[in-house]
Amino acid sequence: MIEIIRYPDRQTWKQLLKRPVMETEGLESTVAAILADIKMNGDRAVIKYTSLFDHVEMKDYLVGEQEFDEGEKKCSNELKRAILDARTNIEKFHRAQIEMPDVIETAKGVICWRKPIGIEKVGLYIPGGTVPLFSTLLMLGIPAKIAGCREIITCSPPGKGGRIHPAILFTARTLGLSKIFKIGGVQAIGAMAYGTETVPSVYKIFGPGNQYVNCAKQLIIRDGVAVDMPAGPSEVAILADESCIPEFVAADLLSQAEHGSDSHVLFVTHRNELLNNVLSKLESQIEKLPLKETALKTLKSSKMILVNNLNEGMDLINEYAPEHLILACRNANGLAEQVINAGSVFLGNYACESAGDYASGTNHTLPTNGTAKAFSGLSVDSFIRKITFQKITRTGIEGIGKTIEIMAGAEGLQGHQNAVKIRINH
Amino acid sequence: MIEIIRYPDRQTWKQLLKRPVMETEGLESTVAAILADIKMNGDRAVIKYTSLFDHVEMKDYLVGEQEFDEGEKKCSNELKRAILDARTNIEKFHRAQIEMPDVIETAKGVICWRKPIGIEKVGLYIPGGTVPLFSTLLMLGIPAKIAGCREIITCSPPGKGGRIHPAILFTARTLGLSKIFKIGGVQAIGAMAYGTETVPSVYKIFGPGNQYVNCAKQLIIRDGVAVDMPAGPSEVAILADESCIPEFVAADLLSQAEHGSDSHVLFVTHRNELLNNVLSKLESQIEKLPLKETALKTLKSSKMILVNNLNEGMDLINEYAPEHLILACRNANGLAEQVINAGSVFLGNYACESAGDYASGTNHTLPTNGTAKAFSGLSVDSFIRKITFQKITRTGIEGIGKTIEIMAGAEGLQGHQNAVKIRINH
Repeated sequence: MIEIIRYPDRQTWKQLLKRPVMETEGLESTVAAILADIKMNGDRAVIKYTSLFDHVEMKDYLVGEQEFDEGEKKCSNELKRAILDARTNIEKFHRAQIEMPDVIETAKGVICWRKPIGIEKVGLYIPGGTVPLFSTLLMLGIPAKIAGCREIITCSPPGKGGRIHPAILFTARTLGLSKIFKIGGVQAIGAMAYGTETVPSVYKIFGPGNQYVNCAKQLIIRDGVAVDMPAGPSEVAILADESCIPEFVAADLLSQAEHGSDSHVLFVTHRNELLNNVLSKLESQIEKLPLKETALKTLKSSKMILVNNLNEGMDLINEYAPEHLILACRNANGLAEQVINAGSVFLGNYACESAGDYASGTNHTLPTNGTAKAFSGLSVDSFIRKITFQKITRTGIEGIGKTIEIMAGAEGLQGHQNAVKIRINH
Repeated sequence: MIEIIRYPDRQTWKQLLKRPVMETEGLESTVAAILADIKMNGDRAVIKYTSLFDHVEMKDYLVGEQEFDEGEKKCSNELKRAILDARTNIEKFHRAQIEMPDVIETAKGVICWRKPIGIEKVGLYIPGGTVPLFSTLLMLGIPAKIAGCREIITCSPPGKGGRIHPAILFTARTLGLSKIFKIGGVQAIGAMAYGTETVPSVYKIFGPGNQYVNCAKQLIIRDGVAVDMPAGPSEVAILADESCIPEFVAADLLSQAEHGSDSHVLFVTHRNELLNNVLSKLESQIEKLPLKETALKTLKSSKMILVNNLNEGMDLINEYAPEHLILACRNANGLAEQVINAGSVFLGNYACESAGDYASGTNHTLPTNGTAKAFSGLSVDSFIRKITFQKITRTGIEGIGKTIEIMAGAEGLQGHQNAVKIRINH
């Protein structure tokens, strides 16, 4: 059910750790055509694709007060309580990310600082499909609010009867996100990027999606719209030693495997008997899983790898650059210091990925498919820009003036020199 | 020589503030073909394009110790001193950007933090052409070093005789950047993105370039390589009132205009007589400028705009989202508070753009072409990832466990529930 590789040579790691490649033949041209249609025809095109892909005839996309009210009623009190509790922890972690600007006098009379300012207009995308990802709305909406973004719009595909899941509506309302458009897929990305008669255009688009949505996000970059990060199927790597509890490890592997049949899991240890033990727990636990078929498909393209020691294991994991990394090891603290490439790291036996997915406070929108080598997970940083400011006194420009003149001269830019000279000689 | 627009209607701003569009017919297919060739044929392709575009036959791209020594000798002591002085200020400003992680207990027994870790492998691109941009090497190399990137490689096109400008070599050596490859243009971006026999591949590529280089940076994103930001021609906006000194303003406009004939400048004021005054200073100062022809071309596609008052001016500038913004106004501090969209802001009469270009300490790699609406300028942040970590005690998971179970249940993910249940029931 899962490939087991023992003591692979370092030379083979790169090949070994490759994620399953998705079939994308014709994908880009299909997506580009839809985007072009929306750019040109606005709402009319959005209505067309919503009918075609979501099988719903829409007239008005915007969720109204009545729909919000109904959503709130349909949400159980237990679920509302859970969402509010998760929100508290997520807010606590993200609010600490706001930094006050340090004002630096880099030279006498030269005062420089950076000021964080929220991106004015942002768009959040919440996928529909089989799972109502209200947890993702918490993960996108909370940092957007903390960053102080002035206009935050949300798109999510309409379900049966043209409705949005009550938990998404309740979450939006509790965060103060009042503009939700019932639009999904490529048409949602196009509407937010280019604007339509009813959907305002935004400067940056956030959120996960299927390969069509991700392709659309890559294409709008060329038109100057920013996106959060490249996204792919979810994944977890677990490094474990004899201090781990095999049942926990198996449950964590399965919680990732059930996400989608294109997910990827990686189990790494230096203990052969532990590997066998985890494998047998996997086999028994998967039987009781409602999403067994999905999990099984994921496991079939996933791997358990036996290494010589934990340090080698960390090297292998840094090469893999997992979205989620669980260090189920006695020396989790020490190994955490060796992490170079990962999205989010869970230490010890009780920090399960589910905790970070929902309620511990960290963000669950993370770099996948090895992009953790260059990208961070989502944070308040993703919703702001840090604008630099500088004040220079007459003394200040006299002090650094000569340096500027010499450098500008060496680069052949006399206009740059003049701007300094004219001030000093004034 | 420059278009003057008086009291434009708000409805017309968007159209009015459009940057000149560059001709890019056929650009993408040309660039894609070169990238594909380099991906396939490595060094052999790089040698071919270097011969074709730079008219130099190269055997060995890597700058050797002897070339570094010679470069250092050719650099005047005065220039060396200036580079070291600028370096001091830039380091001072950027070193303050390193943050120590805040450890947050989001709930009892749930401890979360973010740790900044340098991107392991980065590539810096320094354009050649008419100007040896050693200042840009300072702006890229200093934050890369402070971020703790382990492998930093630099590419810059070979000049006549296959050499790199001495000031670039001296700057590289003083920053401890020992790996400089004499490769330019699209072939440099391709070599760093995909790796060749001699050039290692990197995870993120930084630096300015012409439209071919920028197109190449957009294309490699699709192969999972990160880039700093979309780049376009340089630009400045100046908002001025009667407290400004027209000679200074004219000199600042020209220092931007000389950058390249595709640069863009914008002068905004609510004083008609000031506008005329600045115009006449522009006309006289441009006569003495060695790069007069370039500056004249820039001015021809640029604008001076008369507005009703300074607040309206700030609104207009926020819509423009300039790379550089000079607030030559008595109330520069107050207006600075109204800035929403800009790359870097200069306050008062003595903070000229040249200062930020070279030596005040702020970074000069900034978002252009309106992308300041979603992007920040370069900083140490650009060279790191902030990885989240979490530790959860048994008490911790017991506390947040119910919340996770309810939310996972509502999203239909029983595997996620199990990972919590199995721990609580253990």
